[in-house]
Amino acid sequence: MIILTKEDMQKVFSMEEAIEADKEALRLFSEGKSTVPLRTNIDVPEYEGQSLYMPAYVSGSQSALGVKIVSVYPNNIDKNLPSVPATMVVLNSKTGIVEAVMDGTYLTQLRTGAVQGAATDVLARKDAKVAALFGTGGQAITQLEAMLTVRQLEEVRIFDIDKGRCQKFVEEMSEEFAAFGTKMIAATSAEEAVAGADIITSATTSKRATFDGKFVEEGTHINGVGAYTPEMHEIPADIIVKADKVIFDTTEGVLAEAGDIITPLEEGLVERSHYQGDLGEVMLGKIAGRATDAEITVFKTVGTAVLDVVTAEKILQKAKKFGVGTTINM
Amino acid sequence: MIILTKEDMQKVFSMEEAIEADKEALRLFSEGKSTVPLRTNIDVPEYEGQSLYMPAYVSGSQSALGVKIVSVYPNNIDKNLPSVPATMVVLNSKTGIVEAVMDGTYLTQLRTGAVQGAATDVLARKDAKVAALFGTGGQAITQLEAMLTVRQLEEVRIFDIDKGRCQKFVEEMSEEFAAFGTKMIAATSAEEAVAGADIITSATTSKRATFDGKFVEEGTHINGVGAYTPEMHEIPADIIVKADKVIFDTTEGVLAEAGDIITPLEEGLVERSHYQGDLGEVMLGKIAGRATDAEITVFKTVGTAVLDVVTAEKILQKAKKFGVGTTINM
Repeated sequence: MIILTKEDMQKVFSMEEAIEADKEALRLFSEGKSTVPLRTNIDVPEYEGQSLYMPAYVSGSQSALGVKIVSVYPNNIDKNLPSVPATMVVLNSKTGIVEAVMDGTYLTQLRTGAVQGAATDVLARKDAKVAALFGTGGQAITQLEAMLTVRQLEEVRIFDIDKGRCQKFVEEMSEEFAAFGTKMIAATSAEEAVAGADIITSATTSKRATFDGKFVEEGTHINGVGAYTPEMHEIPADIIVKADKVIFDTTEGVLAEAGDIITPLEEGLVERSHYQGDLGEVMLGKIAGRATDAEITVFKTVGTAVLDVVTAEKILQKAKKFGVGTTINM
Repeated sequence: MIILTKEDMQKVFSMEEAIEADKEALRLFSEGKSTVPLRTNIDVPEYEGQSLYMPAYVSGSQSALGVKIVSVYPNNIDKNLPSVPATMVVLNSKTGIVEAVMDGTYLTQLRTGAVQGAATDVLARKDAKVAALFGTGGQAITQLEAMLTVRQLEEVRIFDIDKGRCQKFVEEMSEEFAAFGTKMIAATSAEEAVAGADIITSATTSKRATFDGKFVEEGTHINGVGAYTPEMHEIPADIIVKADKVIFDTTEGVLAEAGDIITPLEEGLVERSHYQGDLGEVMLGKIAGRATDAEITVFKTVGTAVLDVVTAEKILQKAKKFGVGTTINM
């Protein structure tokens, strides 16, 4: 059995590889090659916690089997511990033997950044130069890296309601990702961030839109990465209405969880047919992606265990290849 | 995170402790202190395998949270790999953080031996001196150790349809458990094993009774440990009928899975009320155990995730106390 820490994973696996892994995972999902049982939730009322078990299996070009264990313990913050700790267990799909245990928090950050990268690569204009990023929380780093990876950006405007945190994030990221040669700025308003942006990514838990749809120009691609409950709405409803293409990671997941997509449908602002389908189907040519440079495209992700198992398997393969991680003879 | 191999677990945790852990687990279960969601099964048809996820949570005197991952891959035998590999993941119930990963195969063997030990301790006559054990497969060692642990036995008769394997097992166990001072013999027939035995434990996957009920004497305690599907029947039906007390680890599990208990009920040989309840209820004094030295008692176990999480948590506590296992800073 191999144990992989975040550092081990970073050592062997790049964002570019994570984006390719997510693309493959979503293609396999859209080909019907995945088995994703209902998530099991265990409530731990004594400690106001919840423990979630998300197993999945994918066959086809990349066979992968495993379970991500995610706990939600809001009180952990008082103990200076992560409030959503996660661990990924990878099984060998040919033998059923547990082969690896890895940092599930980093895996989630990586595959969630990467799925936005995949969508941006598939749906944004090829000549996109300016991007806006809303939110500087735990998901922000990989979101930024993913957009920098798929397009040669001249400028990324970053916005957060916490100005101090935003400024700090911009400074850190300017150093971290200096190699991309992209100018990063802390936008002073949502309008400043969005005006003229070719790509907009929102990764917040906001209950209201993080920007005003009227500043969004033709040809923009928008990613909704946060807003994972029916009460959360970070993408403005008028943009959902105005969008030429609205694409999901998985329609089933998004229509069950994502407020910014569910609410416009419930309020009758859009028909069900306005939501075209999944990114995997776009990649397989089953449904259309961006048709012209003038279209507004929206991608919404709430995540799926398919992304976890495929990305984790690919990371494990690289770790084995390079002899990285701690091997324990069970 | 701590990784515990079988050797690590054996180093810090005795059968006596495992029996106490199982007793506590079943008491907590009968007090309604456990949460055991439906097991999740993933079929992996490409490799004729199946992967099972069994999470559970227990509160009360022993808080424990975790998931056992068990795969069933019959073709592994051709690869010289275990056909039912298992891994236990232990979470800290106070924080939801994964604290340990341990050998799930050994955990299963240990807690399954121990539950028979617990039942034997609670239900067998105090003066039991002679035991019979049917089956010398993967479960046999811990079954033997458990019965040796709870009663001062003079003799254990061991029977297996494979005479050579039985002889080898007796020789190995006579050495392994020499400290108990118990005579072990390879019985040449089921009748020889059972006649005059005070305790009979059957741990096989037999579809027919492993012994004839007519040789079972008054006052005997019988444990059914194998037979975990409705097609399997190792305990003779006439003994189920004749038994004064029929007690389970969990009624729900046994009535869903155990052929030797389901079939007599389906065939009308016994009424539902003939099955009194669970061992935890006996220990809590909610239902009666053995009332006289003349009664025949039967205990049937098919296992429950409650035994896994409580035993695993206790093993982890001991491993931490003694600094055993491989610790990895995640």
